[in-house]
Amino acid sequence: MQIEAGALLRNIIYPSDLRQLKESDLEEVCRELRQYIIDIVSVNGGHFAASLGVVELTVALHYVLNTPYDQIIFDVGHQAYGHKILTGRRENFHTNRIFGGLSGFPKRSESEYDSFGVGHSSTSISAALGMAVASEYKGETDRQHVAVIGDGALTGGMAFEALNHAGIEKSNLLVILNDNCMSIDPNVGALKEYLTSITTSKSYNKFRDDLISVLAKISKNGPDAYGWAKKLEQSIKGTLLKNANLFESLNFRYFGPVDGHDVNKLVKTIEDLKHIPGPKLLHAVTVKGKGYALAEKDQTKWHAPGLFDKITGEIKKSLSDKPQPPKYQDVFGYTLVELAEVNAKIMGVTPAMPSGSSMNIMMKEMPARAFDVGIAEQHAVTFSAGIAAQGLVPFCNIYSSFMQRAYDQVIHDVALQKLNVVFCLDRAGLVGADGPTHHGAYDIAYMRCVPNLIVSSPMNEEELRNLMYTSQLDDKGPFVIRYPRGNGVMADWKRPFREIKIGKGRKIVDGEDVAILTFGHIGNEATKAITVLNTEGIYPAHYDLRFAKPLDEEMLHEVFHKFNKVITVEDGCLPGGIGSAVVEFMTDHNYQAQVRRLGIPDSIVEHGEQSELWSICYYDAKAITEECRRIAKAMPTDSMVS
Amino acid sequence: MQIEAGALLRNIIYPSDLRQLKESDLEEVCRELRQYIIDIVSVNGGHFAASLGVVELTVALHYVLNTPYDQIIFDVGHQAYGHKILTGRRENFHTNRIFGGLSGFPKRSESEYDSFGVGHSSTSISAALGMAVASEYKGETDRQHVAVIGDGALTGGMAFEALNHAGIEKSNLLVILNDNCMSIDPNVGALKEYLTSITTSKSYNKFRDDLISVLAKISKNGPDAYGWAKKLEQSIKGTLLKNANLFESLNFRYFGPVDGHDVNKLVKTIEDLKHIPGPKLLHAVTVKGKGYALAEKDQTKWHAPGLFDKITGEIKKSLSDKPQPPKYQDVFGYTLVELAEVNAKIMGVTPAMPSGSSMNIMMKEMPARAFDVGIAEQHAVTFSAGIAAQGLVPFCNIYSSFMQRAYDQVIHDVALQKLNVVFCLDRAGLVGADGPTHHGAYDIAYMRCVPNLIVSSPMNEEELRNLMYTSQLDDKGPFVIRYPRGNGVMADWKRPFREIKIGKGRKIVDGEDVAILTFGHIGNEATKAITVLNTEGIYPAHYDLRFAKPLDEEMLHEVFHKFNKVITVEDGCLPGGIGSAVVEFMTDHNYQAQVRRLGIPDSIVEHGEQSELWSICYYDAKAITEECRRIAKAMPTDSMVS
Repeated sequence: MQIEAGALLRNIIYPSDLRQLKESDLEEVCRELRQYIIDIVSVNGGHFAASLGVVELTVALHYVLNTPYDQIIFDVGHQAYGHKILTGRRENFHTNRIFGGLSGFPKRSESEYDSFGVGHSSTSISAALGMAVASEYKGETDRQHVAVIGDGALTGGMAFEALNHAGIEKSNLLVILNDNCMSIDPNVGALKEYLTSITTSKSYNKFRDDLISVLAKISKNGPDAYGWAKKLEQSIKGTLLKNANLFESLNFRYFGPVDGHDVNKLVKTIEDLKHIPGPKLLHAVTVKGKGYALAEKDQTKWHAPGLFDKITGEIKKSLSDKPQPPKYQDVFGYTLVELAEVNAKIMGVTPAMPSGSSMNIMMKEMPARAFDVGIAEQHAVTFSAGIAAQGLVPFCNIYSSFMQRAYDQVIHDVALQKLNVVFCLDRAGLVGADGPTHHGAYDIAYMRCVPNLIVSSPMNEEELRNLMYTSQLDDKGPFVIRYPRGNGVMADWKRPFREIKIGKGRKIVDGEDVAILTFGHIGNEATKAITVLNTEGIYPAHYDLRFAKPLDEEMLHEVFHKFNKVITVEDGCLPGGIGSAVVEFMTDHNYQAQVRRLGIPDSIVEHGEQSELWSICYYDAKAITEECRRIAKAMPTDSMVS
Repeated sequence: MQIEAGALLRNIIYPSDLRQLKESDLEEVCRELRQYIIDIVSVNGGHFAASLGVVELTVALHYVLNTPYDQIIFDVGHQAYGHKILTGRRENFHTNRIFGGLSGFPKRSESEYDSFGVGHSSTSISAALGMAVASEYKGETDRQHVAVIGDGALTGGMAFEALNHAGIEKSNLLVILNDNCMSIDPNVGALKEYLTSITTSKSYNKFRDDLISVLAKISKNGPDAYGWAKKLEQSIKGTLLKNANLFESLNFRYFGPVDGHDVNKLVKTIEDLKHIPGPKLLHAVTVKGKGYALAEKDQTKWHAPGLFDKITGEIKKSLSDKPQPPKYQDVFGYTLVELAEVNAKIMGVTPAMPSGSSMNIMMKEMPARAFDVGIAEQHAVTFSAGIAAQGLVPFCNIYSSFMQRAYDQVIHDVALQKLNVVFCLDRAGLVGADGPTHHGAYDIAYMRCVPNLIVSSPMNEEELRNLMYTSQLDDKGPFVIRYPRGNGVMADWKRPFREIKIGKGRKIVDGEDVAILTFGHIGNEATKAITVLNTEGIYPAHYDLRFAKPLDEEMLHEVFHKFNKVITVEDGCLPGGIGSAVVEFMTDHNYQAQVRRLGIPDSIVEHGEQSELWSICYYDAKAITEECRRIAKAMPTDSMVS
């Protein structure tokens, strides 16, 4: 569906077109760009409030800088819709987040204007510094490198690592702090309070604003003048400004705060900053959802609202009239509170995903026992380890792909010490529209190689509840529960808790010829396949492995004694995954069977609908059906045990 | 060997004994403790300079605090020898870092005084905060939680994540910044410069010192008085102190800098700080190597000097007279410069390990092209990705176990974008005396599941050179080269470069009955085994896989066509490792052979000599020999291809 762009925007194909306009036109460009984002996201879905918040910043940056030679990195990239629309992708923007269409995030392979791919938080300063250092080495001293990073993303430790390093390099780096007090949920932490104190402080000196342009003018006159300018700045700061500044502590020259919605002011400021060498930080204050009243008011809800009526703001429900099974996320959230009501040892930890993970339910019910620690996965894990070291049982909920950030902490602080931290890996497996950066593809492989971990996955809501219940009984040690984004399969999910024996799988259905071994929710695809196959006279057995570690060896002995054709199915990468664990077991015990492993192949899986991607990766019900048929047709060989 | 302790130290078995002494005795205790460390490390080896630097801090903490109820976490733990000696382990200290003996790091299973296990950097604040929050929840409001962290460790991003979170919690947390300007190498970054500026600033107000005790006295008188004290503090800071402070920006109450070698002053300060609630930071200035002149002068060399004559300071050479093959580290360091001299695109990146990795050679020769980015693995990887995005070829050298810290960045910033970053994974496999926290056990498993990565390992120095050479030719994409800690096997290692075809293994020796497939340096154990076996009339074939990814499929087809007995050997974990990759291949191609996988078992491997651990884990020459014998004796079965 094509959306009509406003009169100015319609003529902007590339930033070079934007740069033909007069400065006085820019406010109108912003109005049109904002409207375009509202028009298209309302009918197309995707991330919303973040991009509205940086319309002026985006226009100002592309107006002043010589992109793509000058390089902008939008941290995370939720906010880059305006950037994409201004850089040759307006006509295709209706394909955003659709299979085969534009990515929801900046991506190098998509456009030369996307100078660095993003998705996860807090990478932009490191990447921009690397680029700046390389440019300097190559003699491209005029080249600008800009990282646009939110105050939420700034809580991620690697952003600080980058600031610490950038402060001693002389490269041309501008960090724009997009301060809107939000992650997806409201931002938390001391840094946020600090930024608020700067922004609201009456004693904060407006003189800084003028300082920028004075410095820029002086700096243009060469190195001598630059030294003098620096001296002037120091003296002004010493006498006029009461507060030294956190960023200046790290050798950054701090400018701001400026109004991030005053496009003309931003143009002037960025133009001036271009001429000031070395690491600089511009503090821009913005409103997430700016220009769409409802989004400004409920920024979490409007982070990615789905489809909505842009006039009334009514969010459209899914087309199905049937009551849907609950999301795994909600099952997690409610079950955690249910367990915590009985077990006083339970605590909750989320790194900045209260609403996404449903940890917000416990945060609301039991505020003293549930912590949002900010975008800080590493800290979240070791903080949980500290809690567990005192004999409590933290449930630390982290999205599978974000857990990659805390891998060392899982090994070093939890597994080595065998601490009873329960890791709930949300969004495990292919996540759908968010694409490659967010697919939880690797966790089975990277977790099952770590000693002491229990690695489990529920096939449905009841199983999730029972695994959660089991994980907090006695002192089970580190316990991983992975489950996917989205709905389960049970309408009647709230059943009484039952303990599950660690490392115990379950036989879903007995059968002949072939055994299907599945792990987690994807097992429901096997159930569907078997229904079809049974009508054709093919009767595979179906086992739910339930634990990738420890494996149910008793069950596997049964399987390999009985079957010489085995199919494994996982919503995870094939190398090192659970199919791999099964063939390790088979080989170690000298069984010889044909094993067909279905799962995510060893390549990058792009974005698209979850079911679409399962099909492409060939591990959905259809794939399982086909493989069973193929095997059933092949000549049977006897099971061989040597 | 027992070392005699001084007259006071000899009577201190536990901190409770220390606390019986008069304050006026503490200086002498410190002198004796320092001497004891010198005496024992000189004959025993281990980490040295760090522990000398915190003698006074250690004594003061255990004197004032009620350990082990009060909890101290030493970040990294290199500096915890004094702590161990004062907490029941003096008599056993001669077993430090020896197999079956004390660990070189604090370890929960070793002592209740080790409240949290450490080894990797920057974890202490997160862990202490978790413990403090748990204590608060349990009503243990009098319990103290102290993180002792160096200025080097503070550059690690997770320390900042923890500060940001701690700043909004009210728990009882004291961070002691042990500021000695050092990591193993001199510390780098803007933060270091900032700390130096505080410490040396004349304008810095001595009034702060008195402030601590005034505040403590007032705070003891209850909440009302506390409010009044807070007000007083604010007012004093506003009027008397010109500089707001980085840590205060993050809601920490900052105290210091204090002289970290004045034990009586430290006792008084820590006593006072006990009574001030909420997050506090005490900035202690110390000298790494304090009290041993040579160590003070060359702190990097004396970080872990090996055995030495404590009188002359002469460092003892290894007993062997034979010229040793070079360390892989040196081969890396010299080869990198050799390549960089020819290829102007090559850059070098190390996170705080210039001397350990030998990146210091390039840093010295080509300072504009080699970067020490601080203890900041995450940043190091994404910074490298930024460099690669500009068309250059960064060699990013990170120890295998530390790479766990940057796993997400490897996936998200490098592999997804297929950028030509060369990761040199130093200290891969079992590292020896540093033990479980430092074993590079998991990298084959956690790397080979990531798409687009090339994962290789050299069997000797020449191979390392050729892999490095190959990795920087054309645009090979992300390229991992893993090699172990320690010496190679070639005296004549500096041979002309030869390109290696990606994914191409090599046959070392042809044979019959059984094929041994090895990966990396451990392959030399197979060579030794084969020498023995040949004398017994057993002739195994030996293949060096060279690449865990992509596998040499042609070679593997040859192997499985020819052999139905296969042994894989790796210096890495068995679950998901290269043996696992081989059985995946075998199953996927319907080969049926007996495969015996040798490698690190699925459990925590403790510290000890490398060769000792290889033996215990059963993948040294002896183990390979035994397995080959066992197989040779077994009845041969025909290779079966279905």
